[in-house]
Amino acid sequence: MALQVDNDRLQGLISGERFSVIYRLQGNETEASMQARDICLEQTVEFPEELVPDGVIRNKILGRIENMEAWDEASFKVEISYAVETSALELTQLLNVIFGNISIKPGIRVEEINLPQSLLSCFKGPRFGRDGLRQLLKVAKRPLLFTALKPMGLSASELAELAYQFALGGIDIIKDDHGLTDQLFAPFEERVILCTQAVQRANQATGHHAIYVPNVTASYHNLLKRARFAKQAGAGGFLIAPGLTGLDAIRTLADDDALALPLFSHPAFQGSYVMGTSGIAHYALYGQIMRLAGADAVIYPNFGGRFSFSREECTRIAQGTSVPMGPIRQIFPSPGGGMSVESIPEMIKVYDNDVIFLIGGGLFKQGPDLVENCRYFRALVEKYYT
Amino acid sequence: MALQVDNDRLQGLISGERFSVIYRLQGNETEASMQARDICLEQTVEFPEELVPDGVIRNKILGRIENMEAWDEASFKVEISYAVETSALELTQLLNVIFGNISIKPGIRVEEINLPQSLLSCFKGPRFGRDGLRQLLKVAKRPLLFTALKPMGLSASELAELAYQFALGGIDIIKDDHGLTDQLFAPFEERVILCTQAVQRANQATGHHAIYVPNVTASYHNLLKRARFAKQAGAGGFLIAPGLTGLDAIRTLADDDALALPLFSHPAFQGSYVMGTSGIAHYALYGQIMRLAGADAVIYPNFGGRFSFSREECTRIAQGTSVPMGPIRQIFPSPGGGMSVESIPEMIKVYDNDVIFLIGGGLFKQGPDLVENCRYFRALVEKYYT
Repeated sequence: MALQVDNDRLQGLISGERFSVIYRLQGNETEASMQARDICLEQTVEFPEELVPDGVIRNKILGRIENMEAWDEASFKVEISYAVETSALELTQLLNVIFGNISIKPGIRVEEINLPQSLLSCFKGPRFGRDGLRQLLKVAKRPLLFTALKPMGLSASELAELAYQFALGGIDIIKDDHGLTDQLFAPFEERVILCTQAVQRANQATGHHAIYVPNVTASYHNLLKRARFAKQAGAGGFLIAPGLTGLDAIRTLADDDALALPLFSHPAFQGSYVMGTSGIAHYALYGQIMRLAGADAVIYPNFGGRFSFSREECTRIAQGTSVPMGPIRQIFPSPGGGMSVESIPEMIKVYDNDVIFLIGGGLFKQGPDLVENCRYFRALVEKYYT
Repeated sequence: MALQVDNDRLQGLISGERFSVIYRLQGNETEASMQARDICLEQTVEFPEELVPDGVIRNKILGRIENMEAWDEASFKVEISYAVETSALELTQLLNVIFGNISIKPGIRVEEINLPQSLLSCFKGPRFGRDGLRQLLKVAKRPLLFTALKPMGLSASELAELAYQFALGGIDIIKDDHGLTDQLFAPFEERVILCTQAVQRANQATGHHAIYVPNVTASYHNLLKRARFAKQAGAGGFLIAPGLTGLDAIRTLADDDALALPLFSHPAFQGSYVMGTSGIAHYALYGQIMRLAGADAVIYPNFGGRFSFSREECTRIAQGTSVPMGPIRQIFPSPGGGMSVESIPEMIKVYDNDVIFLIGGGLFKQGPDLVENCRYFRALVEKYYT
């Protein structure tokens, strides 16, 4: 059957501005071509090709193949563009056009997104970014130092004592481990109050500006409730795992003028996107998308630790955090996951100074005195940037 | 360094109740054993093994390997249990313990989750479930009929005209295509009002009880705002893609007594979890987890359509929607994605009557008259269950 479409009306609503996505498609040229045409349909009209109404829907709403070239012997690099209006100028729907239904099809990976100024200007991005976070922490040049309160099972006061020692030893950012939420053994509100006070007490002793960053990853309503409580209590930022909360939760916290604290995104429950030849490439996910969502720093597992990211993938993430994106600020890559102070020299080679070094369990292993271990970590980093 | 832990205090906060996860781990026995031990640490204390404090943290908080056996020649089936308290009784943190950090490690797949009564009772699950949805739609026995309004680009009134024809033809559930959000060409509020009215008008003509289900997948704040608007306007359910909003958004809508409408989960932006040997198995993700979150029906791509799920994977999903889960209601599997009326006989063999058949574009292809196409679809299904 033929659909009735008011083409004149629709034409008046389409600006002509388009955003594009670079996909890597597995297969030979014929397969990749078919896959690319399928993506154009699947991500927009989701309709049998022969029934797509001629006129504006076929010419403008339907995705469009802009470019196609061999990636290697087994895959193709294909750029597909979409009308800006298909995104409804909302992060959730933008992500849906980029990779919604096709996430369920094998052999398609989002490599890069290219958004025009008109679309970028719909997003505020990170409130602080690299420069803002440096100003907040009063660290002009060197890499920032980051650690996590753990293990799960400690009480709020036991965690606060650790927070105090970390801050006393010169760590800049002290976050909850991402598994600490509101467990009975260290309830959120008690933990936030005690850890905030502990870090403030250490700051008074050191003259530093360390911040405590509680984990606000939580159920839909509790997320905002906890963030507001933490702000009120004097916390210095928020940790959030968007794989659990949805990516728009980052944007919501970042855009909230009553919160106005730096955001650290955690990769938990999100690894499946970067595991194979399907999914979203490290550069696009941890670089571009986290940044668009409004994270000021993106945590991910570094090469050489207990996870599987390669040195090249980590380098690509760092590139994604800094590539020009219109008004969207540059953010910090924050590699972690089984790092130790011994990893520092190699990490500086890859990341130089605009990086946040996240060392968790490794700081405990260094020696018997936690404060001394932190001082050693800091001295090692400062040695490179004096 | 050694951590100070108040073991007596902690012991008093741990009930001894545990939930467990069955993982499939790629590798030989030695590799799988190491991987399993690593999961026990990674998903709880996230701490170097040698530094985990003896006592309650090591004995109770740490994950515990309960069982391990060969899955096949290349993988092992490993059951790991966790203290119920590690989940903080919140869906987000429960998912984090099940598959947070290890989502970033290759070769680990969540196959099944087993929650004790004490944990299940923290979740209300689906408000309607199979029985409730059948009562609402007044369909006692046969499979339910489901379709989608599309393509993107139609105006709200053009979509409403389609909704009218679908309802007139006897479709039970008429949803927005998951790509329709709040685009200029069919704004959410206008679309909801017109489509709701159109379906009501058709119901008056047919005496049926069809419902219109708008897509409320949206940014954090707009999600609830749109759901409330739709409820007010008389919509009959909500479509939501938890890959975009986070899984807890389903629970939030399901638990909201002021909304009280059936929820249909859509798999967009979530396919990466089921793409390979890492991730979450179909049974656990589309069956158990969606149900725990509160979806009354779970949409997923059927075998034989334009996606890649196998017949066995789809069967497993259906099993997950009905397996005993304490007080959590059974829900409907809703296979779709390139289905046509020709697929019905084969689908009935697999799903029998407790299924929702989702046919979108296929209904348009059947013949020149959309209402007749719907009637044909309905007659075909009714033929099996009279």
